[in-house]
Amino acid sequence: MSRQAAAKGATSQAARKPAGRKASGGKAAAGKGIAGKAATSAKHADDAPIVALDLPAAPLDAEIEAYFAKCREKIGYVPNVLLAYTHDLAKLKAFAAMYNDLMLAPCGLSKLEREMIAVAVSSVNRCYYCLTAHGAAVRQLSGDPVLGEQMVMNYRAARLDARQRAMLDFSVKLTETPWSVEDEDREGLRKVGFSDRDIWDISAVAAFFNMSNRVASGTDMRPNAAYHGSYR
Amino acid sequence: MSRQAAAKGATSQAARKPAGRKASGGKAAAGKGIAGKAATSAKHADDAPIVALDLPAAPLDAEIEAYFAKCREKIGYVPNVLLAYTHDLAKLKAFAAMYNDLMLAPCGLSKLEREMIAVAVSSVNRCYYCLTAHGAAVRQLSGDPVLGEQMVMNYRAARLDARQRAMLDFSVKLTETPWSVEDEDREGLRKVGFSDRDIWDISAVAAFFNMSNRVASGTDMRPNAAYHGSYR
Amino acid sequence: MSRQAAAKGATSQAARKPAGRKASGGKAAAGKGIAGKAATSAKHADDAPIVALDLPAAPLDAEIEAYFAKCREKIGYVPNVLLAYTHDLAKLKAFAAMYNDLMLAPCGLSKLEREMIAVAVSSVNRCYYCLTAHGAAVRQLSGDPVLGEQMVMNYRAARLDARQRAMLDFSVKLTETPWSVEDEDREGLRKVGFSDRDIWDISAVAAFFNMSNRVASGTDMRPNAAYHGSYR
Amino acid sequence: MSRQAAAKGATSQAARKPAGRKASGGKAAAGKGIAGKAATSAKHADDAPIVALDLPAAPLDAEIEAYFAKCREKIGYVPNVLLAYTHDLAKLKAFAAMYNDLMLAPCGLSKLEREMIAVAVSSVNRCYYCLTAHGAAVRQLSGDPVLGEQMVMNYRAARLDARQRAMLDFSVKLTETPWSVEDEDREGLRKVGFSDRDIWDISAVAAFFNMSNRVASGTDMRPNAAYHGSYR
Amino acid sequence: MSRQAAAKGATSQAARKPAGRKASGGKAAAGKGIAGKAATSAKHADDAPIVALDLPAAPLDAEIEAYFAKCREKIGYVPNVLLAYTHDLAKLKAFAAMYNDLMLAPCGLSKLEREMIAVAVSSVNRCYYCLTAHGAAVRQLSGDPVLGEQMVMNYRAARLDARQRAMLDFSVKLTETPWSVEDEDREGLRKVGFSDRDIWDISAVAAFFNMSNRVASGTDMRPNAAYHGSYR
Amino acid sequence: MSRQAAAKGATSQAARKPAGRKASGGKAAAGKGIAGKAATSAKHADDAPIVALDLPAAPLDAEIEAYFAKCREKIGYVPNVLLAYTHDLAKLKAFAAMYNDLMLAPCGLSKLEREMIAVAVSSVNRCYYCLTAHGAAVRQLSGDPVLGEQMVMNYRAARLDARQRAMLDFSVKLTETPWSVEDEDREGLRKVGFSDRDIWDISAVAAFFNMSNRVASGTDMRPNAAYHGSYR
Repeated sequence: MSRQAAAKGATSQAARKPAGRKASGGKAAAGKGIAGKAATSAKHADDAPIVALDLPAAPLDAEIEAYFAKCREKIGYVPNVLLAYTHDLAKLKAFAAMYNDLMLAPCGLSKLEREMIAVAVSSVNRCYYCLTAHGAAVRQLSGDPVLGEQMVMNYRAARLDARQRAMLDFSVKLTETPWSVEDEDREGLRKVGFSDRDIWDISAVAAFFNMSNRVASGTDMRPNAAYHGSYR
Repeated sequence: MSRQAAAKGATSQAARKPAGRKASGGKAAAGKGIAGKAATSAKHADDAPIVALDLPAAPLDAEIEAYFAKCREKIGYVPNVLLAYTHDLAKLKAFAAMYNDLMLAPCGLSKLEREMIAVAVSSVNRCYYCLTAHGAAVRQLSGDPVLGEQMVMNYRAARLDARQRAMLDFSVKLTETPWSVEDEDREGLRKVGFSDRDIWDISAVAAFFNMSNRVASGTDMRPNAAYHGSYR
Repeated sequence: MSRQAAAKGATSQAARKPAGRKASGGKAAAGKGIAGKAATSAKHADDAPIVALDLPAAPLDAEIEAYFAKCREKIGYVPNVLLAYTHDLAKLKAFAAMYNDLMLAPCGLSKLEREMIAVAVSSVNRCYYCLTAHGAAVRQLSGDPVLGEQMVMNYRAARLDARQRAMLDFSVKLTETPWSVEDEDREGLRKVGFSDRDIWDISAVAAFFNMSNRVASGTDMRPNAAYHGSYR
Repeated sequence: MSRQAAAKGATSQAARKPAGRKASGGKAAAGKGIAGKAATSAKHADDAPIVALDLPAAPLDAEIEAYFAKCREKIGYVPNVLLAYTHDLAKLKAFAAMYNDLMLAPCGLSKLEREMIAVAVSSVNRCYYCLTAHGAAVRQLSGDPVLGEQMVMNYRAARLDARQRAMLDFSVKLTETPWSVEDEDREGLRKVGFSDRDIWDISAVAAFFNMSNRVASGTDMRPNAAYHGSYR
Repeated sequence: MSRQAAAKGATSQAARKPAGRKASGGKAAAGKGIAGKAATSAKHADDAPIVALDLPAAPLDAEIEAYFAKCREKIGYVPNVLLAYTHDLAKLKAFAAMYNDLMLAPCGLSKLEREMIAVAVSSVNRCYYCLTAHGAAVRQLSGDPVLGEQMVMNYRAARLDARQRAMLDFSVKLTETPWSVEDEDREGLRKVGFSDRDIWDISAVAAFFNMSNRVASGTDMRPNAAYHGSYR
Repeated sequence: MSRQAAAKGATSQAARKPAGRKASGGKAAAGKGIAGKAATSAKHADDAPIVALDLPAAPLDAEIEAYFAKCREKIGYVPNVLLAYTHDLAKLKAFAAMYNDLMLAPCGLSKLEREMIAVAVSSVNRCYYCLTAHGAAVRQLSGDPVLGEQMVMNYRAARLDARQRAMLDFSVKLTETPWSVEDEDREGLRKVGFSDRDIWDISAVAAFFNMSNRVASGTDMRPNAAYHGSYR
């Protein structure tokens, strides 16, 4: 099954050729609608192809089919990052397992805080895919569209409390100059109330998006159009 | 079971307190020896603790026990990065699954090439853990200790063919300025013979070590002493 | 008349004290509505004060009253950057004169293109005010909300033609390393069709936002909330 | 009237073609002499053309004629930056209005201090035009040629009092990393005695030269030769 | 004999205490005059002390006495960098030997070209001492004061031929990112006519000033006042 | 006598042609053995040529012959950096005099500390030659191979006392941003016990390797293979 077809839960033909940056994309069907902003998201067609590499999707197995069905049921579409991994189901499963553990499992950091780290890191790395997808997540989880914009543009502009500010300062330092992170940085997190387990998690989430940003940039991954207008 | 005990396959007490950078470490037992360089590695004691966070190891389940036993059998010790994750087995398994898929599964890049990317990326990020562990891997897989040193110090000093040089240039660009990777960079890889699948894999390996470097730096992870002297 | 009162065309009391980054702002009345997105913009209150400096507004003269009235009539509010300058009408008039000439006068660059430069430059400088205000302008003038997001996040992700891409590459180089702009850069613009007058204008617009970004960052200028949700 | 002719208050023919970086320039007549250093300035011919763009000067109106006449009367020549703008009188007037308000109007900062900011910012941006013209201004206003050199080379080498040092540190931070300027930076200025109005003015002057530097670099603007030897 | 006394060829008392950046210096006698600009140089007193370290001068031996006498005879003063080394004559002699060989011995590069490299490198490193002393040397050797200023401010602004431009581009690249200098950079020098011996010399001169700049910055070395006004 | 022949104390023919980065080098005879690791060093052949420039060695005089003989007697080979200078004995002698004074003469810093500075500086500059040669020296002088690796990879990872840490922080700051070193940096060294003479020496050693790194990078200098395996 093709990647685009997988996205739509259908079997129709989908673009597979890698396209240059300047190609006029946009033939793929848009997402089916998304909570809170169906009208706007419908205005935009998804970029196609979703990566600038010619990697045919592998046949999906039952586990992935069920996972994607759940995505479509909950948010109306399968996030393109998952489709991008369908050329190799082992990689897709490893990615999804790590993502879901880090971002969704119980944790001393709220889901919103983990998404704030994701966007602040992705802003340093100027990752179009992750800023789009996780910027939308910050807007959704916070109910504060302005907060989402601030994480994308410059997290220092947000009026945060000392704890969240320290969390993002650490994440950004770990992104920009990881070699310079030392005991006093960890101690700074402890002083505003983070546990050692939280410090692991802050590091791990910041680190994960340093990975994802680069998979996305290395492959020119394109976000689902539906993210752009959602939760504004 | 403690992390150090897990490393040794024993149950003795092990240091758990986070230690500052200036602490004189080194009480923990050294690795049991490593192929090719047992004598030298025995000279050094492992740093302890292996991360600067107080994170008690969870009880290992059978799957992890077997995995660690296999490590001890094959290389004489459990890599500290795995021990560092034992505070949460779900995270350990997700990390190991992704690592093993990327670095060990069949791939258009040789295992050595993947390790070369690992070290070149870790050199940009000046990651003590990864430079130590994967520098040893380059020495081992290439049988060329000088190549391992060059990857650590400045990959441009190595006398590489055009294909490997392009692979590392791409990986380093993706590490330093991921926002600037574009179609011409991917096209440059195709020109020296890489397939689109290879480009995904180069991106994914470079990206993975951008993650690992930051987990290591965020937590002050310490490599097993055995790496230092091996395969020299 | 106070700055907030000027914004609303009223005389009620308004916040004047400089507030720290962490202050919870947001008591000031929101913009009165903006073409295309009145509902969303109403959700958000404006930050107050609009600059982190205690600078009482001067009495507005008839010229400025008329200018602000026209703003309120056309877009529903006075842009905060203009209010920020009301402490000194000479400065306000000089700023407005230069801004209007550069961004609105007839020019070889379309208004949209000038706004694209504004946002690409502001993205390098991570200017919260300008990214918000001019990101909205790109969305409005292009009718393409995604283009606005791409200018904010990473202009290289937009699928631009060679002419617009060269225009933004030049603007960003002039922003990041002005000392390195040389004849070959100007020649590059000529090759994709820009006239010498266009090159002046590209330079001047990019330069202007390097100024505005720094006035905004030096004073912690806050954009009208109305921008965030408009033209999505 | 041509730009060069305007500079000399005459109507003779003047070079208009854009010249490459390596062109041997210097046919244009030198400035007519400058207070304090006529002999030296006479040694050098002005570079020509004064910008690397082919932009014929517009006919000057009475206001500009009078302005230029005043320049020639007071300093012996028209600064090239003004001539560079003669292709469009609206732009010239907007620039001059902003410049004169910022640099010459009454202000909590002395004229010398504003010129020191101009040079420290231009040093970061390595702007040949502004370093030359405003370096001369620091020499003139301070009566201390060494101070002018230090602003050009490295303002940290000057033996400044805490107030002026803080003023330049803020200006340079705003130039290099505007996104990182925050409340503590403004508070630092208040602690050494600057008012909130002064903070606006420091920001505005630093910002203005971030603009001017880039107009100059984008167009390869050349300073009048007279600046080089003056007030040494 | 004290350092200052050595400078003047006399035995009077001289400042020895390290002074902070903000100390008002300037009691020491000025240079005795310098070819071409005695009047101006007399306006300025030398900074004292000449380094921010308390390092008493050792008794000068006959070789150094003769060397300094020759300096005073030829240029009217002993360059402060030599006085700064008088605390240890072995170091002074090693420095002078290397300096004289590099900058004065027969070489494929003219003395002016070597001084141009010195200043272009010192501009990258913003070294107050070396920009002052070697900026004067460029003015002297070229007879072109503007060229000296351009080397200090931004060597790219000078209208150089391809050979000298390549020489400075290489020197600056070697200064900023030495790890990235490779065969193609050397080949670029060969293409504009440099021999392999010239490439060594360009590298060696650029490297030498990367050393001198840092000795000067590490010790806050102060140039003789006489340099500032000379050869303008 | 050729450079390679000089290295071996023999007169056989040696490669002289400059070789590109990708040339397969390595025919030259290896070092004759080195204390502590003869077996390993024998595995590797030296790179040839030792610089990427065609610079025939000058006839060695008695002084240099004796110096090289002493090298061969003490460590089994002549360090390649000395051979690289044999094209000009005056330069070789100046280099050796400065090197020996800085690194070997009595000093408030131990020889190990001076080597630690050498490696920390060379790590910033990613100098293959110096990291290899002086990394070996740190291993030798400390008897701690891990310390050598840490200096190469990231000196912040070493568990140093406050004095040595301050020494390296100063050296690295002087390397990366020499313009920003000021009185407070020197005062920081005094606070951990360094004398003003020590501050000179720290600056001078750090500065020297900023020179050596660039001579090596400018010429693609290759370390003797014997260094790699020694003192592991």
